[in-house]
Amino acid sequence: MDTERLIGENRDVWARFVPHPYMVKVVGDPGSLRPWVLEDYHFVRGGAIRFMLALASRAPPEGHLDFLLESTHRLATMEVPIFLEVSRDLGGVDLGREPSMATVSYVSFLNHLATSMDFVYGGAVALFAEEWAYYQAWKWLSGKSQHPVLVRLSSHWSSREFCEYVERLREMVEGMQGDQKTAAGVFRETCRFELLFWDSLNGPDTH
Amino acid sequence: MDTERLIGENRDVWARFVPHPYMVKVVGDPGSLRPWVLEDYHFVRGGAIRFMLALASRAPPEGHLDFLLESTHRLATMEVPIFLEVSRDLGGVDLGREPSMATVSYVSFLNHLATSMDFVYGGAVALFAEEWAYYQAWKWLSGKSQHPVLVRLSSHWSSREFCEYVERLREMVEGMQGDQKTAAGVFRETCRFELLFWDSLNGPDTH
Amino acid sequence: MDTERLIGENRDVWARFVPHPYMVKVVGDPGSLRPWVLEDYHFVRGGAIRFMLALASRAPPEGHLDFLLESTHRLATMEVPIFLEVSRDLGGVDLGREPSMATVSYVSFLNHLATSMDFVYGGAVALFAEEWAYYQAWKWLSGKSQHPVLVRLSSHWSSREFCEYVERLREMVEGMQGDQKTAAGVFRETCRFELLFWDSLNGPDTH
Amino acid sequence: MDTERLIGENRDVWARFVPHPYMVKVVGDPGSLRPWVLEDYHFVRGGAIRFMLALASRAPPEGHLDFLLESTHRLATMEVPIFLEVSRDLGGVDLGREPSMATVSYVSFLNHLATSMDFVYGGAVALFAEEWAYYQAWKWLSGKSQHPVLVRLSSHWSSREFCEYVERLREMVEGMQGDQKTAAGVFRETCRFELLFWDSLNGPDTH
Repeated sequence: MDTERLIGENRDVWARFVPHPYMVKVVGDPGSLRPWVLEDYHFVRGGAIRFMLALASRAPPEGHLDFLLESTHRLATMEVPIFLEVSRDLGGVDLGREPSMATVSYVSFLNHLATSMDFVYGGAVALFAEEWAYYQAWKWLSGKSQHPVLVRLSSHWSSREFCEYVERLREMVEGMQGDQKTAAGVFRETCRFELLFWDSLNGPDTH
Repeated sequence: MDTERLIGENRDVWARFVPHPYMVKVVGDPGSLRPWVLEDYHFVRGGAIRFMLALASRAPPEGHLDFLLESTHRLATMEVPIFLEVSRDLGGVDLGREPSMATVSYVSFLNHLATSMDFVYGGAVALFAEEWAYYQAWKWLSGKSQHPVLVRLSSHWSSREFCEYVERLREMVEGMQGDQKTAAGVFRETCRFELLFWDSLNGPDTH
Repeated sequence: MDTERLIGENRDVWARFVPHPYMVKVVGDPGSLRPWVLEDYHFVRGGAIRFMLALASRAPPEGHLDFLLESTHRLATMEVPIFLEVSRDLGGVDLGREPSMATVSYVSFLNHLATSMDFVYGGAVALFAEEWAYYQAWKWLSGKSQHPVLVRLSSHWSSREFCEYVERLREMVEGMQGDQKTAAGVFRETCRFELLFWDSLNGPDTH
Repeated sequence: MDTERLIGENRDVWARFVPHPYMVKVVGDPGSLRPWVLEDYHFVRGGAIRFMLALASRAPPEGHLDFLLESTHRLATMEVPIFLEVSRDLGGVDLGREPSMATVSYVSFLNHLATSMDFVYGGAVALFAEEWAYYQAWKWLSGKSQHPVLVRLSSHWSSREFCEYVERLREMVEGMQGDQKTAAGVFRETCRFELLFWDSLNGPDTH
């Protein structure tokens, strides 16, 4: 699978995404990050962790199972506490609220992929798309604000460690044999859900 | 599970749904049904059939497996040809186009439910919600137009046979033991996706 | 996928299978078919139907979904009644008894394949192996006994219709792209479970 | 769920299991542990890890997801190296060989449970049964041999840490609402597969 091509074919999405208007707003007003805390907490807790577990459970033992298990473990033990910490720092975000339809849709899309398609084209491509997008979004923000919450977040998702993790995902996808057209479809749909997620944060409350 | 309560708790959704502004538009201009043909074709072909198969594959053999298998078979052999027929009658709708994000989201939500939750609260409640909503929507339209396509569609989804099928789904849900609160959550989320589906048909093209 | 090669590589299994000593015994004493009625009823009702539904739910809509749905529907409406009929003709077999470990294992193996591997190598190859083996077993028996129950059964599983179904499965597997080695592994394991199933019918009661 | 009752109802299995004849043989001749190394390595690598991942991916985020993820992570990082170490200490066991039908059956049974039933009755009960049995088997062996490999193994699976893990699984099952009869069926079937696994180690080579 040619990941450069997957990324290149979605320039129209990246143009709307890096930077996303919501990120621009957040730089000017870090308090506007509050809906993101709720939505991304649900995305990770209720969605991404399950998605990665489902993916790992279908990975060949000799293949990427250990890598995916290790990554899920890190997500659960390192990223989930970040949301709790940032929620506190922003004066308390009610994490018990229902997530938006955009978040529920994105989470459903990823988890359906992980169980319906085979390991290759399904989750692996989508996981790379999702994490690559996250890396781009937060790298853009890096250095643009001295607000401790934004520094905290961008230093996590644009760190060397996170970058290496995204590169490892890219290698996993690169090493896969299969139909580039199917992979391109999954990649693009994931990008569109990522964009929908950020659009919904910027728009009126959709709860 | 108390289905009257499930329906009663979602009066706010039904108020926006029966009739939905898109249905009102369709009565005045049957040609505006064209995006619906594309989206519902994908919903049924790429989504509902898989969802019902996944649900049936997890149903106890002594329980609802036969009913769900029979219903899926009817969906595939009776409803799919309706979309092809109506597409022709409306001058040809390109069914090869990608469905909207609303459709992909709804389909993902249902299929994720079918594999992630247990049989009871997952798909069964969602399937009832979805079909009940469809029955209400098309029953409203019934008799409001003499346009052959609308007569064809409303006569199918408000037929005695379809009504009996929806009642059978209701009995299945009624007969289930379990936590009403979880069921209510699934029912409400399904209603919101149904509404999102119709809203997207009425809005600007979201492809 | 080269199905001739898949079949050819398992000559050692077929040598023990066509005819299987249990089948030889059944020709001499049709009453010894009673444990088979129980086990195969459970295999079909509790196992093969779910397996095929799970497989169909993951098939591409443009691909084999309709064929698999149609085949499952026929299995449920045509084969299940055969077991009830034969149970009656053999003086009543208690179909409520627990199936043997061999049957539970075989059913688990198939269903796990259907959800864990991708569509191609998982269920499709296994389904072909299973049905091909059944066709061989009953074709051997065909004409060897005038006992009405054996005539009934062999006329079903060695009929032209069943033969065409098995050929259609073969074409499905032939048309698949993918790693022959993985397919060979799945094919062989399915053959071994098929053999285990027949061995268990011939051996001491394993309940 | 009453776990004392689940255990008590299977006294006939435990009587054949603690001690299992294979364990008695191993105490007298530690080298006879070699087939176990192969089979249990496959059971854990190809089976139990996937099973627990699939289970975790369906656990409610507020519930047992973190516990199951943590346990799977420990299994992969702590237990898998034990097999490699013991294989070396026993003069090298070819871990690339195919596992026996008993192992493939057990692994299939667990993984099918994890995806086919709901979280409660499916995997959770089976996981408890499996780990409880393992704890009993190795606790029996503890102190019966000074052979370093047996000391290594029994000190792991009868350690305080492993005991606490099994107790935590028991609490998880105890806290579950649901039909005791279904749970009893799953528990018993798991016990039978555990017994089959040990029987196969003691018998003639079934490869």
